[in-house]
Amino acid sequence: MKETVSGCSIEDAMQLLSGRWRTLLIYYLKDRPKRFSELQRDNPSISHRMLTLELRALEQAGIVSRTVFAEVPPRVEYALTADGRRLMPLLDALGDWWEALSAGQGDRQAAE
Amino acid sequence: MKETVSGCSIEDAMQLLSGRWRTLLIYYLKDRPKRFSELQRDNPSISHRMLTLELRALEQAGIVSRTVFAEVPPRVEYALTADGRRLMPLLDALGDWWEALSAGQGDRQAAE
Repeated sequence: MKETVSGCSIEDAMQLLSGRWRTLLIYYLKDRPKRFSELQRDNPSISHRMLTLELRALEQAGIVSRTVFAEVPPRVEYALTADGRRLMPLLDALGDWWEALSAGQGDRQAAE
Repeated sequence: MKETVSGCSIEDAMQLLSGRWRTLLIYYLKDRPKRFSELQRDNPSISHRMLTLELRALEQAGIVSRTVFAEVPPRVEYALTADGRRLMPLLDALGDWWEALSAGQGDRQAAE
């Protein structure tokens, strides 16, 4: 645990990753690069426009890369960058932490 | 990295921790329990009402405990629970990740 970490960098990270879709998109890219249509299948309830916007935000943050292959028809692939891959185990650990927290939730509610 | 972690538990964790104050309050409680007035001094721009609401939300989530000491005048202390303490290194790691990401940001913007 680094003592030099300010509350602000934690806050900024949470800001970037909050919202309905971003962590899900990162999660669905964890194993391999995917095309736009594959990410739509992974997240059937996201609109075309929202998926475009969220991928662009992740791309601008440097978490996701967008590669256009000069084929006919052109193929576009989205992948986690090195920074995005480094984030994955942290998100997994947060998910594990949440599950442990939720498992203990019943006791606390009964005690209130 | 656990394969059984669903995108949803990550999403739920982010939902709980998002917002302007929650990670900051957790951060300021990391070393020792604090009284309400100490947390106000740590976060001078939070309103009395908002601090009350955010502490209550963290308490209900099982991340922060509230202990009333029967003294005159009564003393109330807020502390991280065991679940809250387990969260701390994960938030620190996210902050470190963010700092590394931000450090590389300039290069990417130049390349756009």
